[in-house]
Amino acid sequence: MTLLKDIGEFGLISRIRKSIKTDASVIKGSGDDCAVLKLDKNRYQLFTCDMIAEGVDFTLKDGPYLIGRKALAVSISDIAACAGLPRYCVVSLGISKHTPVKFIDKLLKGILTIAKKYNVNLVGGDISRAKQLTIDVSMLGVVEKKNLVLRSGARVGDVIFVTGKLGGSILGKHLSFTPRLKEARFLTKNFKINSMIDISDGLTQDLGHILEESEKGAVIYADLIPVSRQARNLNDALSAGEDFELLFTMPFKEAKRFHKRELPGFKVIGEIVDKKYGFRLVDKHGKEEAVKAKGFRHF
Amino acid sequence: MTLLKDIGEFGLISRIRKSIKTDASVIKGSGDDCAVLKLDKNRYQLFTCDMIAEGVDFTLKDGPYLIGRKALAVSISDIAACAGLPRYCVVSLGISKHTPVKFIDKLLKGILTIAKKYNVNLVGGDISRAKQLTIDVSMLGVVEKKNLVLRSGARVGDVIFVTGKLGGSILGKHLSFTPRLKEARFLTKNFKINSMIDISDGLTQDLGHILEESEKGAVIYADLIPVSRQARNLNDALSAGEDFELLFTMPFKEAKRFHKRELPGFKVIGEIVDKKYGFRLVDKHGKEEAVKAKGFRHF
Repeated sequence: MTLLKDIGEFGLISRIRKSIKTDASVIKGSGDDCAVLKLDKNRYQLFTCDMIAEGVDFTLKDGPYLIGRKALAVSISDIAACAGLPRYCVVSLGISKHTPVKFIDKLLKGILTIAKKYNVNLVGGDISRAKQLTIDVSMLGVVEKKNLVLRSGARVGDVIFVTGKLGGSILGKHLSFTPRLKEARFLTKNFKINSMIDISDGLTQDLGHILEESEKGAVIYADLIPVSRQARNLNDALSAGEDFELLFTMPFKEAKRFHKRELPGFKVIGEIVDKKYGFRLVDKHGKEEAVKAKGFRHF
Repeated sequence: MTLLKDIGEFGLISRIRKSIKTDASVIKGSGDDCAVLKLDKNRYQLFTCDMIAEGVDFTLKDGPYLIGRKALAVSISDIAACAGLPRYCVVSLGISKHTPVKFIDKLLKGILTIAKKYNVNLVGGDISRAKQLTIDVSMLGVVEKKNLVLRSGARVGDVIFVTGKLGGSILGKHLSFTPRLKEARFLTKNFKINSMIDISDGLTQDLGHILEESEKGAVIYADLIPVSRQARNLNDALSAGEDFELLFTMPFKEAKRFHKRELPGFKVIGEIVDKKYGFRLVDKHGKEEAVKAKGFRHF
């Protein structure tokens, strides 16, 4: 009997995607950071959900405020990855009846503080009994049609960027990261961004998603990858999940224009190449090796 | 130290509602079957979420097909209770890695079959490791502004109706119920419906929600309550959760017009009265007693 662990998280997702049909109002269904839906003449609606659970995405020791904050921040980051603005969310909470009310108050405070900061309206929710604390957030956002960026738009010759240092999530950044909403909006308003994703599963795995959706290859350079001070080594920066920096690509000409602005934080890490070259990492001695996308997987 | 079980599910919800602020685009936030959001000139958007969990809302013995079906049906029922049409959903799945892939295939089939039947597009999701099978569905719908019905609109003199027999959920109906979407649409297109809710926690508890939101009282008649053949007694019909019939109220004049249509299924069970009379049940001997809203509570 085949079990979930045999086909893995991405095996399951591709299995599910194959059986789904959607109507013409769905611009993009599953397979990106958000679903993209028709809204009005100039805008699309974005729709995303993220479930975080005790023992997987956080421990109770992390404290209720940061747990609540994280529950919302991961969805805001998904909206950012499509270059949209978050607007509304609903929150489902699976929780034990023995939870102190004070814990819930602080969890709510974590949720409401970040909601306020990013102009998200908390408009509803559901509460269920559960052994393991589980929080599922669904979020709606909007994006101007001209600003929408998907995973699938990378082109040969695109320069690959990240918005900040990688590999720091293991030592706590996964709880206190800043969703790169401002950066995403700045980028799409001022430059032609061909593809974008947030790094929630690790750099190589998430770049792998862009390559798969765009049917392209990539070369990245070990020397160029900005490694967080909290990372233990380059490997953390390559494959530790939950940095929640944005990974994006733009045409070389645009990248030159972008470079002239001398904006801090953004780093070039490589370029998009033809699919036949695969996905390669060049080490500091100039030696190339094939990258097998590695990162966080639930199964 | 005060625990969740001390303040209870509704204590927690009212605590949360007090601390939430929303902007002018939110017509109705938490406190109804769906959140109601501005959409365009003639329509509102509806947004709702429901989490179901193993050991609380179903057991694995119920089988994956019906579990998947239920996960979606409860949200469709929420959209129906606001007289809208469901359009899109995202599904978060907390699941063990030891789950057979066949189980997941059947779960997905349950989800997709009911989604297709009610024209719901499954547009995304999230998968997380979990000990207890947990499914959270968030759903978007639309409703014409003129058709929207909330819990808060009941008026003194309104006649109280239900769409079908009550008390059958314990013996399985909670898995195979039909969301009353067609009925809700028929009602609001043809009659002036003042308030509506779906019975997910039990008749008295859910009528209690209408009374609270509308600041009214009610009298219901034991003899009039349609008891399911699967119910063990009147008490099941009064307080067993998850019948997912609709409970609604309309002015007496409308009710007379409605009555003339001799529509099967719909049953009058009582009337809305002034708040000062409270919530009363008249037994078959004509004796009145105060109703303390009873039904399913998570804590």
